[in-house]
Order: sequence, then C-alpha cells, then structure tokens
Amino acid sequence: METTSKNCVQNTMKVIGAKWTVMILRELCEEKRRFGEIQKALNGISPRTLSARLQELESHGIVNKKVFKEIPLHVEYSLTPRGESLKTIIKQMHDWGSKS
Amino acid sequence: METTSKNCVQNTMKVIGAKWTVMILRELCEEKRRFGEIQKALNGISPRTLSARLQELESHGIVNKKVFKEIPLHVEYSLTPRGESLKTIIKQMHDWGSKS
Repeated sequence: METTSKNCVQNTMKVIGAKWTVMILRELCEEKRRFGEIQKALNGISPRTLSARLQELESHGIVNKKVFKEIPLHVEYSLTPRGESLKTIIKQMHDWGSKS
Repeated sequence: METTSKNCVQNTMKVIGAKWTVMILRELCEEKRRFGEIQKALNGISPRTLSARLQELESHGIVNKKVFKEIPLHVEYSLTPRGESLKTIIKQMHDWGSKS
C-alpha cells in the first residue's frame, strides 16, 4: 500500500462505514431484495434509517432501485456492477466476523 | 454466506467500524508505530481519540502496546496475530477505495 494514498481505506469507509450499511449490502450480496425483506432481515432498523442508507448507497452508485408500478407499490433493490465489486470485502468481513 | 450467521459482518464492523480505526490499522499494517507517528499520519485525529481507538483495538486483541521504560516515554503499537488476520480486508478496502 502506497504512502501517497493514505485515504483509500477512508474512501471505502465513507461508502460502507455507516451503521447498518454492511448488513444491507450483505443481504443484497445474496440477491435482489424488496424494502420490506431487507427491513425484516435487519431486525431493529427503522424504515427511515433503511431508506436513508439505501439512498446513500444509490448516490454512491452501489445499489440500484427498481420501482414496479403496481398496487401495492413494489420496489426492488439490487447491487450495481460497482456494488458487486464490494462482494469480496463483504464476504471477507463475514468470514472474519464468523471466527471472532 | 449462511443465512444463520447474519451478524458476522456486524461483528467485524464492531471491531473496525469506528471513525479512524481502519486508518490506524492501515498504518500498523505497514509496520509497528509509535503513538506520535500514527497521530502524524492521521492528520486531524486528536490524541484523545487516537488513544481511545488504540485502547479499543487492544481490548479486541487486535493491537499490542509495548512500553519502553525510557525518558521520554517510548510506546510502540503493533498488530497481534489476530490483527494480522485483518490485513487482507484492509488491503482490499484500500484497493477498492483507490478505484473510487
């Protein structure tokens, strides 16, 4: 790791470092998910926080939001190619955390 | 990743997720460092925060603190074997962040 690029790990943390974000990504690593499915999987997250985290991930180009114009409204979230490129990190964080 | 172990990524984030922590680890991935060296490398961190983060990392068994009984006091921080096991994650976060 080069001394001239000290902020690279920080750049990554700016994208994945907020509370709940890695858990949301972990869900989306498996497959696309509806809002309610993510909320259920992340027992304890408020809809407001989940919505904010998903918007942040969208703004970073990590998550794609697809709205189906049905009643009731059906919204699906999935990883973009840039999001897919985070899978290895999420997988390794999962593996490390499973041993701790 | 198993559905039964949803909290593994969260376990990892509990250890490395606090502000500055990955940057401290990034420094220690290179080699052992004195307190002042880490502080200088992490431009903007307060001594109080650095001290708190290092203590958290020590309590998680990630960082080893070695005090040399000299005047002026000389304290060195290095990664434990458990800390070394985080190197791959830190390296990948660095690489991902360098592309973003």
